[in-house]
Amino acid sequence: MKVLRNVLKNKLKLRTEKDFPIKGIEFIDINPLMLDKDLFNEITNCFVKELKDKKIDYVLCPEARGFIFGTSVAHVIKAGIIPVRKKGKLPPSTVATTIEYEKEYGKDYLELPKLYEDDYDGKNFYIIDDIYATGNTARAIKNSVESLGGNVVGIGAVINIKELNNDEVFSLIDINES
Amino acid sequence: MKVLRNVLKNKLKLRTEKDFPIKGIEFIDINPLMLDKDLFNEITNCFVKELKDKKIDYVLCPEARGFIFGTSVAHVIKAGIIPVRKKGKLPPSTVATTIEYEKEYGKDYLELPKLYEDDYDGKNFYIIDDIYATGNTARAIKNSVESLGGNVVGIGAVINIKELNNDEVFSLIDINES
Repeated sequence: MKVLRNVLKNKLKLRTEKDFPIKGIEFIDINPLMLDKDLFNEITNCFVKELKDKKIDYVLCPEARGFIFGTSVAHVIKAGIIPVRKKGKLPPSTVATTIEYEKEYGKDYLELPKLYEDDYDGKNFYIIDDIYATGNTARAIKNSVESLGGNVVGIGAVINIKELNNDEVFSLIDINES
Repeated sequence: MKVLRNVLKNKLKLRTEKDFPIKGIEFIDINPLMLDKDLFNEITNCFVKELKDKKIDYVLCPEARGFIFGTSVAHVIKAGIIPVRKKGKLPPSTVATTIEYEKEYGKDYLELPKLYEDDYDGKNFYIIDDIYATGNTARAIKNSVESLGGNVVGIGAVINIKELNNDEVFSLIDINES
């Protein structure tokens, strides 16, 4: 896995944008990771390799960029996809639970959909998102799924902001790791 | 392809929600299509089959549900992924062009990202979204890409609302088709 990470790091020119979306935030532009089909392919393969011996029933994909990285992985490992949606996107009758969490720039809400012919209870879940910074989003999702009886096997992120000491996440690109 | 469409139709129990997100709109809930790994797998395979002889450089995925259906297809056919983002999500310096279009419930804006080490000019694109209703979103994206010199080879949608006479789209599930 380390080798794959290094290939990614070498090929990658990560772009950042100062003061976006608000002053004081340095925005990491991940578009180059999906525009380049070889990079995207390698990212998907890294997650698939990590997950191949785990029995994942569903990949939890936080809106919106988690949709991009989580969906392909779920497809390859043959797991279901759970879109963790921003509040107001799901019809109220289809919401399993509302998740409150702290973002870098304010409080926000996500909603877990009902699974219809299935149940969170007793199933295995994995969270895939683009960037793991404070970890607040992923931890809040994990707690909500666990409160419904689900087992969150792990958390994966394409980029891990290591200066925040996030060791609990499986990541492909660690920023501030020399 | 017709056979695959029928399998989808038979397995599928499409849910709708009246008056969501606003009064007068009947919302089609597509979550069952991604929660069920077999259905999602079949959807991806249908698009892959349709696209296998076309030389697609990039799949254009409109935020947010186009991210889910377009990404896996792009991954399998080895194309790049272009997230067509809602206005304000991309740093201004990374926007190639802003797209204005009419939604069922009001005017809206999308933004096409710059491709960094590549160019829209002369490349082949395919649009994949969840639902094709008025077609305004897809047509507006198509026009913008073409104004940048790109060639939009086609438009695909999981669901096509046939009562609106949308024959220009490749779709897997046609509503109001007996």
